[in-house]
Amino acid sequence: MNDLHVIIPAGGSGTRLWPLSRRSRPKFLLDLTGSGRSMLQDTVDRMAPIAASITIVTGAAHCEAVLEQLPEFGTREDRQLIIEPSPRDSMPAIGLAAYLIRGRYGEDAIVGSFAADHHIGRPDLLRQSVVTAVAAARRGFITTIGITPTGPATAYGYIRPGRGIEGLEGVEFADRFVEKPGEERARTLVADGCLWNAGMFVMSVRTLAGHLMRLHPDLDAALSRVARAWDTPDGPQVRDDLWATCQKIAIDHAIAEPVADEGGVAVVPADIRLAWSDIGDFAAVNDLKGDEGAAVRIAAPGTTVIRSDGSVMTGGPAPTVVLVGVEDVIVVSTGDAVLVTRASSSQQVKAAVDALHRDGRDDLL
Amino acid sequence: MNDLHVIIPAGGSGTRLWPLSRRSRPKFLLDLTGSGRSMLQDTVDRMAPIAASITIVTGAAHCEAVLEQLPEFGTREDRQLIIEPSPRDSMPAIGLAAYLIRGRYGEDAIVGSFAADHHIGRPDLLRQSVVTAVAAARRGFITTIGITPTGPATAYGYIRPGRGIEGLEGVEFADRFVEKPGEERARTLVADGCLWNAGMFVMSVRTLAGHLMRLHPDLDAALSRVARAWDTPDGPQVRDDLWATCQKIAIDHAIAEPVADEGGVAVVPADIRLAWSDIGDFAAVNDLKGDEGAAVRIAAPGTTVIRSDGSVMTGGPAPTVVLVGVEDVIVVSTGDAVLVTRASSSQQVKAAVDALHRDGRDDLL
Repeated sequence: MNDLHVIIPAGGSGTRLWPLSRRSRPKFLLDLTGSGRSMLQDTVDRMAPIAASITIVTGAAHCEAVLEQLPEFGTREDRQLIIEPSPRDSMPAIGLAAYLIRGRYGEDAIVGSFAADHHIGRPDLLRQSVVTAVAAARRGFITTIGITPTGPATAYGYIRPGRGIEGLEGVEFADRFVEKPGEERARTLVADGCLWNAGMFVMSVRTLAGHLMRLHPDLDAALSRVARAWDTPDGPQVRDDLWATCQKIAIDHAIAEPVADEGGVAVVPADIRLAWSDIGDFAAVNDLKGDEGAAVRIAAPGTTVIRSDGSVMTGGPAPTVVLVGVEDVIVVSTGDAVLVTRASSSQQVKAAVDALHRDGRDDLL
Repeated sequence: MNDLHVIIPAGGSGTRLWPLSRRSRPKFLLDLTGSGRSMLQDTVDRMAPIAASITIVTGAAHCEAVLEQLPEFGTREDRQLIIEPSPRDSMPAIGLAAYLIRGRYGEDAIVGSFAADHHIGRPDLLRQSVVTAVAAARRGFITTIGITPTGPATAYGYIRPGRGIEGLEGVEFADRFVEKPGEERARTLVADGCLWNAGMFVMSVRTLAGHLMRLHPDLDAALSRVARAWDTPDGPQVRDDLWATCQKIAIDHAIAEPVADEGGVAVVPADIRLAWSDIGDFAAVNDLKGDEGAAVRIAAPGTTVIRSDGSVMTGGPAPTVVLVGVEDVIVVSTGDAVLVTRASSSQQVKAAVDALHRDGRDDLL
């Protein structure tokens, strides 16, 4: 399989993971699993075995940090780093990367976009699903990978699978995309066999371009012009001028949802053992790293713990954190800030970040 | 009343208040109540209106800090600062101060010793009790002030009062001193009308010296020699040489307990409205500062709190502390260390300090 070109849009700040994640050091640059590799590095490592090329799309502010973590993106032809002049959501980012790939590898190239900040416990199983998705992409489908839910999550969108597709084993029509539901609705969706939408899309550039031309002709035209000018002296100027005109829209809304209604989207239900997580909050970090049964599941070196069944993690060695008699508390310490929360409240960390912003503490964001 | 000479032994580290209290900045140097004055300054302020002189006894390590907080102890004749070469518990410290007072003011001088790190909500009521105690001291009693208990505390020793003393209104014999009891015993003691031992002793130097000579002749001899040499060129040398020979013993064990058995100790039960506290742990700090009903009772400037009914206090402005959805948690942040505990566990903070010491983190102690 030498025609899968991986696109990794590396954006989003991961506000709920403050104070670990910052504007200048967003979630994808962090090593949240203690693997020694950042989420972005993990994503590259995971896809490299089946990728003909890998393209990262990120903001100018993160260019240097990305190259520090992945220097090969400054030297190798099959490792491309695209700088977005401003965040425009996933469709323009993936579209531009896809059109640049079209220029280098032709219309039949298969592109697959994968978030830079998700965790996959079993990358081998993901790669199997992607290989299946590539086959569907070759048949002209916008193909997504749907994650078998482990519970009625309200933090994810859902995909309703339909009937199977002839000649494509393990692939079904994606009948509908469902936005993040409430808890009641989430339970119904899970009971109905719906899958989590992890934002993974695999398709040929020809298919993608066809839909874009039809559904978003202005965006198609702008991205085509930027891609054509890319390697010319005018490239940066054309990019900056036209990028500002691009509609800010996610690939889900731009392509996946309308095309699903037309029967043009396929879904590969992923093996539940994949252990996918978007690590959206500290509860998810905690779940991920959990040694079941351990009193303190995430202990930074130098943390002193006295009779505290629960959790602690720190982002740095100082200050020294000491827990005495507190159960199930999550402490995140980064030198300039200390967050104390619980797994059950960790979605509300966003509110704290908003409060800091209101208080003019942007130095901490 | 111009013959009360106040002695303030300023020792003890207040380990349970780590990381606010440190070896180099013990509890008595801290402003734990937010009054703007340290515990030691508060103690001096409280006794000054009825004191002919005030003598502080502290370790060499704290000399500079004490003079910084109380510069008059370096300049005024009636404000004396005595440096202990090494900690020898309260009897040698109080004894030396008393013998120096004897040299200056004569044997009939009344000395009163008061801890440097206790809180008194109503200093006016304490001073009334001390005036009563001075009258008993003039009659030759070792006189203590017993605090009316607000509950069956296990962190304090108790005093069992006996019959009243003729001619001394509000004064009773102290029949027995009881060491810190278990909870069951504490309940019985409170039901029996026993009082908390706050370590306050008022007596004439003549009475004190008489008991010391009889019960601890070596200590009496050593302290007498040190006091006599004090203002001579040999003073420091004599002090250093003899101090090392002094028995390490508390005034309770050295004098109060044996003399009580002989009927020589009186107790002045203090008004319950005194609101005495030894602020032994963070739960006590919290109780003291509690605005009843407030969601967060102790909030440092810059603390961000999201849905967290409970407590937070910090010892410094950095790092910024953020609480999200944690109830009844006490957070103490001092730049180099962060303690997270609960009121109900705050006695165990000592165990954390022990653990840090074992781990070689004496830089934090």
